[in-house]
Amino acid sequence: MTDAQLILERCDELATISSSPDFLERVHLSPEHAAANALVAGWMEQAGLSTWQDAAGNQCGRIEGREEGLPALLLGSHIDTVPDAGRYDGMLGVLLAIQVASRIEPGTLPFALEVVAFSDEEGTRFGTALLGSRALAGTWDDEWWNLTDKDGITLFEAFQDFGLDPARLPGAFRRPETLVGYLEAHIEQGPILEDADRQLAVVTSIAGARRFALTMHGKAGHAGGTPFDRRRDALVGASELVVEIERLSRTHDVIGTVGKLEAFPGGVNVIPGRAEFSLDLRAEFDDDRDKVLALIEQAAAEIAGRRGLEFEQHEIYRADAVVCDLDLRQAVESGIRSIGDDDPMAFWSRAGHDGMAVVAATPIAMLFLRCKGGVSHHPDEAVKQADVTAALDAFEAAVRSLAERH
Amino acid sequence: MTDAQLILERCDELATISSSPDFLERVHLSPEHAAANALVAGWMEQAGLSTWQDAAGNQCGRIEGREEGLPALLLGSHIDTVPDAGRYDGMLGVLLAIQVASRIEPGTLPFALEVVAFSDEEGTRFGTALLGSRALAGTWDDEWWNLTDKDGITLFEAFQDFGLDPARLPGAFRRPETLVGYLEAHIEQGPILEDADRQLAVVTSIAGARRFALTMHGKAGHAGGTPFDRRRDALVGASELVVEIERLSRTHDVIGTVGKLEAFPGGVNVIPGRAEFSLDLRAEFDDDRDKVLALIEQAAAEIAGRRGLEFEQHEIYRADAVVCDLDLRQAVESGIRSIGDDDPMAFWSRAGHDGMAVVAATPIAMLFLRCKGGVSHHPDEAVKQADVTAALDAFEAAVRSLAERH
Repeated sequence: MTDAQLILERCDELATISSSPDFLERVHLSPEHAAANALVAGWMEQAGLSTWQDAAGNQCGRIEGREEGLPALLLGSHIDTVPDAGRYDGMLGVLLAIQVASRIEPGTLPFALEVVAFSDEEGTRFGTALLGSRALAGTWDDEWWNLTDKDGITLFEAFQDFGLDPARLPGAFRRPETLVGYLEAHIEQGPILEDADRQLAVVTSIAGARRFALTMHGKAGHAGGTPFDRRRDALVGASELVVEIERLSRTHDVIGTVGKLEAFPGGVNVIPGRAEFSLDLRAEFDDDRDKVLALIEQAAAEIAGRRGLEFEQHEIYRADAVVCDLDLRQAVESGIRSIGDDDPMAFWSRAGHDGMAVVAATPIAMLFLRCKGGVSHHPDEAVKQADVTAALDAFEAAVRSLAERH
Repeated sequence: MTDAQLILERCDELATISSSPDFLERVHLSPEHAAANALVAGWMEQAGLSTWQDAAGNQCGRIEGREEGLPALLLGSHIDTVPDAGRYDGMLGVLLAIQVASRIEPGTLPFALEVVAFSDEEGTRFGTALLGSRALAGTWDDEWWNLTDKDGITLFEAFQDFGLDPARLPGAFRRPETLVGYLEAHIEQGPILEDADRQLAVVTSIAGARRFALTMHGKAGHAGGTPFDRRRDALVGASELVVEIERLSRTHDVIGTVGKLEAFPGGVNVIPGRAEFSLDLRAEFDDDRDKVLALIEQAAAEIAGRRGLEFEQHEIYRADAVVCDLDLRQAVESGIRSIGDDDPMAFWSRAGHDGMAVVAATPIAMLFLRCKGGVSHHPDEAVKQADVTAALDAFEAAVRSLAERH
């Protein structure tokens, strides 16, 4: 069996660990999380790593460099999923990292090599994403202990149920001087590589995203009795804004998405008095994103003013764009060149990744590999075995290139 | 206490019978429906009527005319509500009818007088409206037995739970030869009377309405990874259509309302793959309504084609416009004149009413009274006591005028 075959078989095996028999869902601090950690730890040990689960539930493994206790280059990704997920987003990056480590002779590199399978990147269970990588990077916020899942269990309680001691969380923090950098391989989750008929790319930056809960307040009324010039229809106002968000985003080359919308009270013959919706806004550069946000706010004010509505917005998430480290990017590019691609593609990641949190502790860079149709967060996620082979070889070469220049 | 005060106090008392402590909602065949029927029956008996609950859950009362068993003039309205309702839509008409009956000496009219408190006009629980009046009018459709509420309870089961025997439903049918006509008093649910500074109006016709469940089907995808030219965003398509429905309706002087809209799967960072929404379309003349429907369908096809979506529509309700009977209208006009309004206003009802169903069994007419700001289907529904007095006197005079001409 080739390494790529082994990696794909392991992705299939990980995908069987799910909270549902019908689809893949594996969330932070669940029994499935524990089972996945145990499986991954076994694979790490087969690859020659010494393993431990850290104080935040991240599954870690390490091989030493030329001396014991040298700062470590981290390789990793996450093993939690969205609901009804594919089997490669996150997991493939962890398995590629383990396989790279298996190819490195212990005691030969000028740094230690560590693999991290992050416990929570998607934020599916507690709404707040990147809990695993934020613990490692030392940007933990103690207010998160009170976050609750859909059953009302707090993050604090979930830690205890998982066998972790919340008081020991600081033990997961990694001081910057113990780290060399962080490299992650991930499926692109977009169609750029496929459209260009290329296998791999180096990531230049990770998009900054802001997310908002939006509300249009109008006045409910009888659909029959209320003439148009008396209506304060919250849904028509929200709908105008949804169309305008798309137009403004396209015009200014940022990514704006309204993923949720619901009209209230929701009677078929009642004019909606309230519309609740969401906005996810991301761009390569934070300035572009924030400029379009201002235009959206201006449009919302104009619509609300014209229609006698009130517009309300509440920011629920904010992550600024993260630029990948130039040295690490060059190592990744050199890795891509080593597989015969003389002019590596380079573009920004539209999706968020663990690196956005890890960068608080150490420089980061990423390697993207092509996925089928750009589809992700969906069971149709798929990769070609040849692309996994290319990614593995390039990832290994990137680590060796970094070692040479260290 | 004046009759108008008594009526308003009873509206307040009925409004306390709700499935929620926070707002007024009382639906077909619920425990609250049974409680409201019992309360209304008591008031009917105090007014001298003999009472019964019919086989469809309608609460009925009767006083005989000059002979026993004469055909009856029906007076009535409904006692079910929309969610978060006002306290006058329907209920006020029932209480006015009871009070009119209390003023009539039994055995004096050339017809019997019956009051009906219809069990279901709004259709809140089972989606299909006018179930009470359709049972009475003999236009029941046995397919309705399989309608389900939000908990999956069928109409058939709900009848049984309420203590009614579905097999006996035909007992609620009223043969046309047992009826003289149907008169209903109702708040206008619009601002025409208030704008004209008038108290009462006679209704010329009731708008025909058609209601549809609409769906835009697109494809869900990652908000970050899917570029705009690859998106098949069901929500933006639906939003365009919502705005267009308003524009087409205004331009062609019909009333179009989207009361429901929800995007699925509803993740803040997931492009909506499906949007489900509703359309309520009504006009004075059915032809106008249907012409605008064709334009809306054309717009939906254009939007779906341009965006790679599929548009689906399913008609859930259809009622053609109903013209009020000329004799009964004259009786109502004569009633309005009797309170000193020499030139009664006459206009069409934008809202649907029980009369739309009752007309299958007997001629109908309606009396409108002014409500505050035209607001209805909302807790802010309000009427003036003086207008209730005027409506009561005019309603009584209309009955007496009909008796004279009979």
